[in-house]
Amino acid sequence: MQPYELPLTEAAEQLRARALSPLELVDSVLDRIAATEPRLGAYVTVTAERARRAAREAGHQLAADPGAVPLPGIPVGLKDLIDVAGEPTTASSRVRSGHRAGTDSTVAARVTAAGAALVGKTHTHEFAYGLTTPQTRNAWDQRRVAGGSSGGSAVAVAAGAATFALGTDTGGSIRVPAALNGVVGLKPTFGLVPRHGVTPLSWSLDHVGPLTRTVEDASLVMAVLTGDAPRDPGPPPRPAHDLTGLRVGVPGNYFFDRVDPEVETAVRQAIGRLAELGARLVDVEIPMARYVQAVQWGLMVPEATAYHERTLRTVPELYAPDVRILLEAGALLPAADYLRAQRARTLMRQSWLSMLETVDVVAAPTVPTTAAEAGRADRNWPDGTVESVSDSYVRLSAPADITGVPALTVPVGHDRAGLPIGMQLMGRPREEAVLLRAGHAYERTRRPGALAPVGGTSGGAGTHATTVL
Amino acid sequence: MQPYELPLTEAAEQLRARALSPLELVDSVLDRIAATEPRLGAYVTVTAERARRAAREAGHQLAADPGAVPLPGIPVGLKDLIDVAGEPTTASSRVRSGHRAGTDSTVAARVTAAGAALVGKTHTHEFAYGLTTPQTRNAWDQRRVAGGSSGGSAVAVAAGAATFALGTDTGGSIRVPAALNGVVGLKPTFGLVPRHGVTPLSWSLDHVGPLTRTVEDASLVMAVLTGDAPRDPGPPPRPAHDLTGLRVGVPGNYFFDRVDPEVETAVRQAIGRLAELGARLVDVEIPMARYVQAVQWGLMVPEATAYHERTLRTVPELYAPDVRILLEAGALLPAADYLRAQRARTLMRQSWLSMLETVDVVAAPTVPTTAAEAGRADRNWPDGTVESVSDSYVRLSAPADITGVPALTVPVGHDRAGLPIGMQLMGRPREEAVLLRAGHAYERTRRPGALAPVGGTSGGAGTHATTVL
Repeated sequence: MQPYELPLTEAAEQLRARALSPLELVDSVLDRIAATEPRLGAYVTVTAERARRAAREAGHQLAADPGAVPLPGIPVGLKDLIDVAGEPTTASSRVRSGHRAGTDSTVAARVTAAGAALVGKTHTHEFAYGLTTPQTRNAWDQRRVAGGSSGGSAVAVAAGAATFALGTDTGGSIRVPAALNGVVGLKPTFGLVPRHGVTPLSWSLDHVGPLTRTVEDASLVMAVLTGDAPRDPGPPPRPAHDLTGLRVGVPGNYFFDRVDPEVETAVRQAIGRLAELGARLVDVEIPMARYVQAVQWGLMVPEATAYHERTLRTVPELYAPDVRILLEAGALLPAADYLRAQRARTLMRQSWLSMLETVDVVAAPTVPTTAAEAGRADRNWPDGTVESVSDSYVRLSAPADITGVPALTVPVGHDRAGLPIGMQLMGRPREEAVLLRAGHAYERTRRPGALAPVGGTSGGAGTHATTVL
Repeated sequence: MQPYELPLTEAAEQLRARALSPLELVDSVLDRIAATEPRLGAYVTVTAERARRAAREAGHQLAADPGAVPLPGIPVGLKDLIDVAGEPTTASSRVRSGHRAGTDSTVAARVTAAGAALVGKTHTHEFAYGLTTPQTRNAWDQRRVAGGSSGGSAVAVAAGAATFALGTDTGGSIRVPAALNGVVGLKPTFGLVPRHGVTPLSWSLDHVGPLTRTVEDASLVMAVLTGDAPRDPGPPPRPAHDLTGLRVGVPGNYFFDRVDPEVETAVRQAIGRLAELGARLVDVEIPMARYVQAVQWGLMVPEATAYHERTLRTVPELYAPDVRILLEAGALLPAADYLRAQRARTLMRQSWLSMLETVDVVAAPTVPTTAAEAGRADRNWPDGTVESVSDSYVRLSAPADITGVPALTVPVGHDRAGLPIGMQLMGRPREEAVLLRAGHAYERTRRPGALAPVGGTSGGAGTHATTVL
């Protein structure tokens, strides 16, 4: 097994045991980036020298004290909305040409203070305003979309081109690409992870969170992001894998409507696995479900336009057409619609909190389908409805952004084409630990963290992967 | 001196000393209401029986324990946006015909639990959306406007038709009528006094607060409104009347621009009085002053429309034309303008808080002019600008609503026509006590709490007062 293949927790254990050096790990990941980038396009910038410098520093720290930092030289990719002092934050947009961040964002400062080695800035759908990330290709089948907007982060983690990554999530932008690329993604409770120095899409919906190869890894990164990581983590706590007492809500409406049968089957099997682990399954009714889309767009669209107001006036031609049209449309939305969305959000949040008094976790698909072919515009559902691919991607993830509750996606298998499927676990505000415990117990029942077979020598989607680019 | 003439603190002292009974006080105020209402129109409803019942109850309480409650049988008028269980909350609007409140608002519950006797619900400009309160006439000159939107509350207190009253303030609706009727009004820090059960105008700007005849009275009512009133207040604390150490900011811009010379002279004299009491006067520059009007309207207009959305669609004809046109205009405002106002508010609040690190209080006129003749639309200023009366009334009070800082208005004299003038003191959030101390020290240097000479037997405006209605 090459160092780039190691999940974070395992890599950190080997580093602390001196079985692996930070520089070996960083070089292995940099080599993997070099090998996969031509196919994947996950990175805007690769910061090899910065990463090696951090690895050498981590090596000194490990020599002096193996428990000095929780992420010693661990290679991280940061979505290119996240400021790193001295680097451009391009937001994958021509609008940002010539930009350079003066100071670190809070999250960049926290992961680097924890020892992580920045290997690069990952592609985002332009300014996070889309669900596909067109510069980047799906790690499992390069004819398919990466998902977005944190597409580069998810693909890098899935391909071994980063040991972990950070993304942002406004309507699903961590969880959607994580699910479509077979990695773990956590959208934390609204407000829990600081957003200072992260380019906003929509300030009342934006979240920053981790993308990792295992749930255990996501726990460790979350501790760093919230500032709760112990200086010396010691051996990681071994969580109980008995879920007795956990009440898992299974939605009777909304989350299994218009869902691909293969996705539904995989997610229901995973929910069955939770029950086998001791969880009690409880039918739940999702409240106010028919308002989700209107509230999500009603909040996001005008807030996004407000942030881009000046550049939209001065350099509109520098935006990609899809993003520009959304931003320009935002200027036309009446305040009445925005305020209606705000008020509906308040009610929706209250009713979700009531529902979450009856269960500890709600389990559902993360995305109704697996990754679409690049360029595909719509889905045709058996009930006759036609839905844009973007609308379908945001549909099941938006509720957690609107209500601010934490949501975790974990890989639960592949469809017949070999494309990954994700299960979403949503819980009460600030109870990330409950989601992580359930997700970790689940992932231990299967082999987690398998890398995407980029290059096409194995894996279900491999036969496609060799034919593209 | 008749009981209705007593300021609250003095009345409470006489009640506790058994020199006066609650029923005598309530009956005196009810008689005063009967005598003045035909001229003033301050009340939507007079709740005589409810008041007498409360007075009898307060009499029993006083007999058992003179310190049982802080407001034993004190007659109060509540702006008719404030729910009282079993009474209609008309908002002075035909839209509310048939309305009846099921439960007390938090503030109504607090003042009645403190012993106060509700004598009636006072007129508001319809749904608080205006600065004149057309149903009500100025207590000092009935050809002139009461100011608004808490016009009924201010006029009742000024005329002795209530010992104190509550109002609401979104752009100046407590302070403007208080100043124009020569009473004290306090707009508390945003969020300090609960708004539950109070009909909103604009949820991000609305405040509930007291109108009283003295600053000392306002202190006592504030303690009740915030839930801080001691069960047994004992003798009221005697505040120091030496203002040594207090830094009073005197604005070099904005607050003295386009201000009537008689108002400016009276306010500058009052500021001089603060200096004689030991305060140090400090020149201050008001930040972002040119954004005040756009921010106030940009926030208020769409939020007001959102609240009225349904009735505006179903019964638009029931609104007064001035209010209906504002509500309908609100439906046309783009979300971009609302969000621009929100962002400007955040910056304005930050810059005000910085300014308020350099001074403890900012002193300024409350309103640039005294009460206008009813029906007058505009002001012509010597610099050639024309300003609507409503715009002029809101201009100097809006900054404290936008920034959420507390603001107190105290009477500082009359113009040559006998009309009252108010001085506004603004301070740091939650430092109402600083404003109240300064206002109280000031009011002790003059005879406070003189009632408006309704009926025209004395006072500067009396000769007019007899000629109207």
